[in-house]
Amino acid sequence: MNQLVEITERQIGEWDKYKRVNFFNQLSGVRTPFLIGTRSNDEIDNLAIFNSVVHIGANPPLLGFVMRPTTVERHTYNNIKGSKVLSMNLVHKEILDKAHQTSAKYPSEQSEFEAVGLSVLRGLESVPYVKESNVSLQLGFVEEHKIKNGTILLVCEIKKVYVNAKYWSDKEDLDFGKMKTVGVSGLYNYYTLESLKRLDHV
Amino acid sequence: MNQLVEITERQIGEWDKYKRVNFFNQLSGVRTPFLIGTRSNDEIDNLAIFNSVVHIGANPPLLGFVMRPTTVERHTYNNIKGSKVLSMNLVHKEILDKAHQTSAKYPSEQSEFEAVGLSVLRGLESVPYVKESNVSLQLGFVEEHKIKNGTILLVCEIKKVYVNAKYWSDKEDLDFGKMKTVGVSGLYNYYTLESLKRLDHV
Repeated sequence: MNQLVEITERQIGEWDKYKRVNFFNQLSGVRTPFLIGTRSNDEIDNLAIFNSVVHIGANPPLLGFVMRPTTVERHTYNNIKGSKVLSMNLVHKEILDKAHQTSAKYPSEQSEFEAVGLSVLRGLESVPYVKESNVSLQLGFVEEHKIKNGTILLVCEIKKVYVNAKYWSDKEDLDFGKMKTVGVSGLYNYYTLESLKRLDHV
Repeated sequence: MNQLVEITERQIGEWDKYKRVNFFNQLSGVRTPFLIGTRSNDEIDNLAIFNSVVHIGANPPLLGFVMRPTTVERHTYNNIKGSKVLSMNLVHKEILDKAHQTSAKYPSEQSEFEAVGLSVLRGLESVPYVKESNVSLQLGFVEEHKIKNGTILLVCEIKKVYVNAKYWSDKEDLDFGKMKTVGVSGLYNYYTLESLKRLDHV
């Protein structure tokens, strides 16, 4: 039987700010981070890593992500509100360090693609994709919801889906383990993933 | 260099409904599912697996999750709106099949705990926890946001945190790999997780 420990407010209050933030962030578990690519009115590409992407619906295909009103993320927010378009790009083991580094502060005239060393892939739309990613999505802005603590849920519709041919089987299943997709928990703890099993739909 | 394939609307349109739903659900990546425990006015415990838990903030500690307005999830929704309290319980390899089975339809007078064979742990609050889980949270309802497609984002505040003593190190880090926590992608593809590395906070 499990012996449970209660992690009390008093205990948490003794940690420094980053430990507290990291702890509570971890309690939502592990999820795959995404690199969100946008482009400003001044044609500067922006790239930022987000750990808070969530499935909202399949018909129409909607995703959401939560952003804090901080300097780093404001570029992403302003660009999306301006151009109404963005890309989401999956992160794998080989590009993890670069992807993580996009959360540093860079001057607004500098593209994070250049700053961290990731390659831009640009289609007919102005939105930049990450060339190294195994799955890239093009999305359009749909709506936003302001949450009590000042964060914002942005809801976006999936417009285009690109998958690295190496990992596409012409079936609807994607194997995130084979793609060496990483997971993240909290601010900086990364995980590898491996396919365990497929259960029946109940 | 990656050779990209575009998965077109036409292609997706040829799949049956579940394949389409599974495909778009997968595009939000892999994340740890949670068992959400609630209790009805009639004192029936409800337990349902959710794949859409997202971190919203650390101060105050807020989590959100997205629910569709379906029969199964309506029990969870009604109970939360009634009692204002819920538990979130982490899923590991040993209880995965039972956890997945909670998404089947059961009559409202039957508790999913009994139906799938998971054990109730009840504290002073009325909310039921999953005894077998390695991390359990008690949360209070904060607010809800209705999204365009009819789904609802429920925002909740973390009130209590319980961790299996075996996995608690008195530091703020949780190792979800050691706990054999599972990840899920789409409706039914499950993954194992293993700690890869901790990067610096940037």
